[in-house]
Amino acid sequence: MPSYTAPLKDMQFLLHDVLQISAAGIPGYGDLDQSFTAAVLDEAAKVAKDVLAPLNLVGDREGCTLENGVVRTPTGFKAAFDVLRKGGWVSLDSPPEFGGQGLPCVIYTAVSEMFVSANMAFTMYHGLTHGAASTILAHGTAEQVATYLPKMVSCDWTGTMNLTEPHCGTDLGLMRTRAYPQADGSYRITGQKIFISAGDHDLAENIVHLVLAKAPGGGEGTKGISLFIVPKVLVNADGSLGARNGVSVGKIEKKMGIHGNATCVMNYDGAQGWLLGDLHKGMKAMFTMMNEARLAVGLQGYAVAEAAYQAAVTYAKDRLQGRDVMGPQNPSGPADPLIVHPDIRRSLMEQKSFVEGARALTFWGAVLIDRARQGDAEAEGLISLMIPVIKGFMTDMGFQMAVQAQQVFGGHGYIEEQGMSQFVRDARIAMIYEGANGVQALDLVGRKLAADGGKHVMAFFEMVKAECKAHDADARMADLVEPLKAASKQLQQAGMFFMAQGMKNPNAALAGSYDFMHMMGHVCLGLMWVRIAKAAHAGLDAGAGDRGFLEAKLATARFYMARQLPACSMHLARIETGADPVMALPAEAF
Amino acid sequence: MPSYTAPLKDMQFLLHDVLQISAAGIPGYGDLDQSFTAAVLDEAAKVAKDVLAPLNLVGDREGCTLENGVVRTPTGFKAAFDVLRKGGWVSLDSPPEFGGQGLPCVIYTAVSEMFVSANMAFTMYHGLTHGAASTILAHGTAEQVATYLPKMVSCDWTGTMNLTEPHCGTDLGLMRTRAYPQADGSYRITGQKIFISAGDHDLAENIVHLVLAKAPGGGEGTKGISLFIVPKVLVNADGSLGARNGVSVGKIEKKMGIHGNATCVMNYDGAQGWLLGDLHKGMKAMFTMMNEARLAVGLQGYAVAEAAYQAAVTYAKDRLQGRDVMGPQNPSGPADPLIVHPDIRRSLMEQKSFVEGARALTFWGAVLIDRARQGDAEAEGLISLMIPVIKGFMTDMGFQMAVQAQQVFGGHGYIEEQGMSQFVRDARIAMIYEGANGVQALDLVGRKLAADGGKHVMAFFEMVKAECKAHDADARMADLVEPLKAASKQLQQAGMFFMAQGMKNPNAALAGSYDFMHMMGHVCLGLMWVRIAKAAHAGLDAGAGDRGFLEAKLATARFYMARQLPACSMHLARIETGADPVMALPAEAF
Repeated sequence: MPSYTAPLKDMQFLLHDVLQISAAGIPGYGDLDQSFTAAVLDEAAKVAKDVLAPLNLVGDREGCTLENGVVRTPTGFKAAFDVLRKGGWVSLDSPPEFGGQGLPCVIYTAVSEMFVSANMAFTMYHGLTHGAASTILAHGTAEQVATYLPKMVSCDWTGTMNLTEPHCGTDLGLMRTRAYPQADGSYRITGQKIFISAGDHDLAENIVHLVLAKAPGGGEGTKGISLFIVPKVLVNADGSLGARNGVSVGKIEKKMGIHGNATCVMNYDGAQGWLLGDLHKGMKAMFTMMNEARLAVGLQGYAVAEAAYQAAVTYAKDRLQGRDVMGPQNPSGPADPLIVHPDIRRSLMEQKSFVEGARALTFWGAVLIDRARQGDAEAEGLISLMIPVIKGFMTDMGFQMAVQAQQVFGGHGYIEEQGMSQFVRDARIAMIYEGANGVQALDLVGRKLAADGGKHVMAFFEMVKAECKAHDADARMADLVEPLKAASKQLQQAGMFFMAQGMKNPNAALAGSYDFMHMMGHVCLGLMWVRIAKAAHAGLDAGAGDRGFLEAKLATARFYMARQLPACSMHLARIETGADPVMALPAEAF
Repeated sequence: MPSYTAPLKDMQFLLHDVLQISAAGIPGYGDLDQSFTAAVLDEAAKVAKDVLAPLNLVGDREGCTLENGVVRTPTGFKAAFDVLRKGGWVSLDSPPEFGGQGLPCVIYTAVSEMFVSANMAFTMYHGLTHGAASTILAHGTAEQVATYLPKMVSCDWTGTMNLTEPHCGTDLGLMRTRAYPQADGSYRITGQKIFISAGDHDLAENIVHLVLAKAPGGGEGTKGISLFIVPKVLVNADGSLGARNGVSVGKIEKKMGIHGNATCVMNYDGAQGWLLGDLHKGMKAMFTMMNEARLAVGLQGYAVAEAAYQAAVTYAKDRLQGRDVMGPQNPSGPADPLIVHPDIRRSLMEQKSFVEGARALTFWGAVLIDRARQGDAEAEGLISLMIPVIKGFMTDMGFQMAVQAQQVFGGHGYIEEQGMSQFVRDARIAMIYEGANGVQALDLVGRKLAADGGKHVMAFFEMVKAECKAHDADARMADLVEPLKAASKQLQQAGMFFMAQGMKNPNAALAGSYDFMHMMGHVCLGLMWVRIAKAAHAGLDAGAGDRGFLEAKLATARFYMARQLPACSMHLARIETGADPVMALPAEAF
C-alpha cells in the first residue's frame, strides 16, 4: 500500500517565497507568517498521513453499499470523518460567525491537496458540503443561512449538488425534474437525479441536497430552472431534526474509481424543498461557486498524481533491475535501482515537473479567489479565465501522470494491492465531472477569451510578458524565459487565428479548443516555473533555505521548459489546420 | 453493454486494395482472393459478435476464482472456448500437419483483431497457446513436437509462458527458479513464477507451461537460463494423461482489468520438466517468437480502441445534448446529437484515424512476418525494427484512444455497466506486459536502430522516401505526402542526433528513446495513410468499391496528417535537448 508524506517544504516555499503571502498579504486576512502556516500544514499533514491515507485502499476495496435504502460507507470512514470535524479541518476557510476558521482559500487549498492525495474519495464528502454551504451563504435568506450554515460548516450535516438527469448532463435545459409551489411557500420536488456524489451515507445526521428543478412559468431551456434546498431529514422550526423527506436513493453506481464515495441515483417523490435564490435563476445560483468548485477538481488532478508520484519514486529507488549504461551504481547489489535508467528518470521528471508546477498554479489561483472575494475585479477576471485551464488541463495531465507512475511499477502496477491502479481509476473521474474537459475547452475558447472584450486574456499575456522582461538581464534565467516567451507567442498566435476565422467559422475555434486549453496550460505552468526559479535564485543568492531543494527547483524548471513546453508548437500546428480536417467527414461516415 | 461489429469492409480493403495479398501473393501460400478471405472473415465476425462479445462484461464482472487449487473461468467461457476450438479458429495459421488451417499470419491477425475487440481477456487463452506451440515447434525434439503440437494446435491443451519472478521482470538475469537434472534426462523445476496469464483454468484438460529456469553450469545472469516444458498433467508414453505434476497455483492476482483471464502465481515444487532447445540458451528460445508475440500485443492496443470507438460513435449519434453552433441539425428533437460538436468530432477523428492506421500497420507487419517465415531477410529485418514501435506506440495510443472514447460518454463512461471503463482497464495492460513500453523504446533505440549496421532503418527511410516520390506528380496527394516527408526528415534528424552523441553520451539516446518510439509510430502511420489514400484514389478512379467509404479514407488520411503528424516536431524538440534536462537531478532529490 502506498504511504503518503505531505510535501510541506514545497508548500511553504510556494506560500512564502513564490506567492509571498506573508509579505504581500492577502486583503481581508491577518498575518499569515511562516510559523502560522507551518503549524496548520504540519497538523493537516499528520491527519492526511495517519487518518486518511490508511483508509484509501480500504475505501476502494469495500466501496459503499446500499442496504434497506441506507448507504454504508467503508470501514473507518465514520471515525475519520469525526476526526476531521472535531479538528475543524472541514471549515478552514468558512466564516467564523458560523463556526469556521476564517482562513483564506489558499490555506484551505493546501490542506485539501494533502487530504485528496491521501484519500480522494473520502475528501469529497466534506468538499461537496463546503461548496453547497457557500452557495446557501451566497443566495440564501437569513433564515436559510441560520438554519443550515452552522450545521454544514461543522459537517454535522453534509451537502450535495443535484444537476444531472439520465438524459441530460451538460445540456441542463433538457431537465425534467419539476418543482410545484405549495401554499406555505415551499415546493414539492419530483424527478430523478443521477451521479449524485455523497448522495447518501452514514457520516452525518442530515444531508442537504441542492436540487435544480423546473418551476412553473420559467419558460423553455435553462431559463426555467430554479435551485432548491431539499434536506434529507426535514428541519423543525427550532432547528431539531423532524420527519424524513420524500427523497430516497435509487441505487449506488458501480464505477471505475472513487469507490469510497457513494455515487447515487436520487429519487425525489414530492420531496419538500425551498427555493434558494431567485425563482428561475437557478443556473446562476448553482454556478456561483463554479471557480472554487473547478479549482477543487483541478486540484484533484495533480493531488492524486502527487500521491502516485511519491509511490513511483519509492519503487524506482527500491526496485533493483538492470544496470546503469554508464556503469554500475550499486555494484555490491545484484542490479541497480530503476531510477538510474534514463527513461524512468524522464517519466519521473515529467511527473515531478507537472505536479510542482500545478501546485503553484493552483495555490496562485486560490490567492486570486481570495482577492476576488474581497472585490478585486482584475483577480476575478483572471481566475475566471484560467479556471477552465486549471480544471481541464490539470486533470488531463494528472491522469496521464498517474498512468506514468503506474507504468514505473511494470506488472506490479497493474495489481490492485499496490494501489497504483486505484490512483489511475480515481484520477479518471476528475476529467469528467464538474464539466467534462471538452466543455472546459469550450468555456475557455467560446466564452472566457472574449469576456469583457478580451480584457482578461490580454492582461494574462501582459503578465507573462512582464515576467519574462523582468529577467531579461539575468543570464541564469535565459533558458527558462526564452522558451516561455516563444510558447506565449504561439498561444497568442492561436488566439489570433481564432479571431481571424471569427464569426464566419466558429467551428475553427471549437475544433481547436482542446489544443488551446492544453497550450495555455503549458504556458501557465511555464510562467509558474519562471516564478519558482526566481524565488529559488533569490533563496540561493541569500544563502537561505535548503540548497539542495532550491537547486532541484531550478533543474526541474529547466526540464519543464526543455521537454514539456515544445508541446505548444504541436498544438499551434494542429489548431492552424482549422475546422476542415475535423469536420470533413459526414456524421454517417463514422 | 457495447455491441461489436467487425470492420469487415476495412479489412478486405486493406488485404486486397492496400496490401494486395491476392495480386502480389504471399510466398508459400496459395490463392488468397477476395471471396476466400471474405468467407473466413465473415464467419469469424459472427463468432466475435455472437459468441465472444456477449461474454466480455461477464468476464470483467465475475473474474476468475481459485477454489481448492483450481481456477474457474467466468460463466460461458468454457462453452465459448469449445466453439472456437471446434470451428478451428484457434489454429488458423498453424501447420496443417498438426491439424492447423495453414493460413498466413495476416489472416490469423485479422481474425485475432475481431476476437480481441470482442473479448480481449478471453482471447488470451488461445493466443498464448499459439505462442507456446510455435516455440515448441521451433525448438522441440521430434518427440516433443509429436507429443505436444497436435494437442496445443487444437487447444485441447493450452500453453503459458513463465518468465517473471517476484524480484525480476525485465532483468531476467536475477532469476532464482532452478532446474535440477535427473538421471532419466528430465529436470526437476523448483521456484515461483508470477503474472502467469492463463496459468490455470478449466477450459482445457492440460496446460503446457514453458518455464525459464537456471540449470547448473550456465554461469551468471541470463547466460545460465534454460527453457523447459512443464506440463500441468504429465503425459504418458502413449500420449494419454497421467499424474498431476508438481506445479500449483499460489493465488490469482486481483488486477485492474482483463479479469476474465486468470493471472496466476505459479509454484513449481520439484515439478518434472524437459529441456526445450539447447541448454543455457533459454532466453533465445523463449524469444524466438518475439515478433509474433509483440505484434499480437500491439494489436490488442488498437483492437480494444476499435471496440471503444464503435461504442463512442454509437453514443455520439444517439445522445442528444446541446445544439450545433452553426444551427440545429435535429430541429424536431430537443437537442442535437453529440456528434455535431467539433470537439467530439475531433476526438472521434483521432480515434478513427489511429485505429484504421494501426490496423494497416499491423496487417502489413503480419505480411512481413509471413515473408520472414519464408526466409525473406529484408522482411525479417524490417519487421524486427518496427516491432517495438508496433508494440509500444500502438498500445500507448490504443489506451489513450480508449480513454477518449470513454470521455465521449461523460459521466456514463465512468459507470461500469456501460463497458467503457472495462475497455480502458483492459487496454492498460498492453502497455505493460510482453516488455513494458519503456523497454520497447530501449530495444528500438539501443538495439534495433544499429542492428546490421543500421541497414534496416536506412531501408525504412528509403521506403518512406520512395513512397513519397511515387506521388510527386499527383497533386491530390500533396497534402498527405508533404507532411510525411517532413515527419520522416525529423525522424532521421533525431536518429542523427543520437549518432552524433554516440558512445560518449549514451544517455542522450536513452533519454530520447520514448519520444523516438512515438515519433517513428507517427511516421509509420503516416506511411500507412499515404498507402491507404493511394488505394482509395485508385478505387475512386476506377469507379470501383464504395465511394463513401473511399472518400472517408481520404478525409481521415488528411486528418491524420494535419492533426497527428505535428507531434513529430514536438518529439524532435524534446529529443534534441539531450540527456541533461532528464538526468540533471541527483536521485536523492526525487
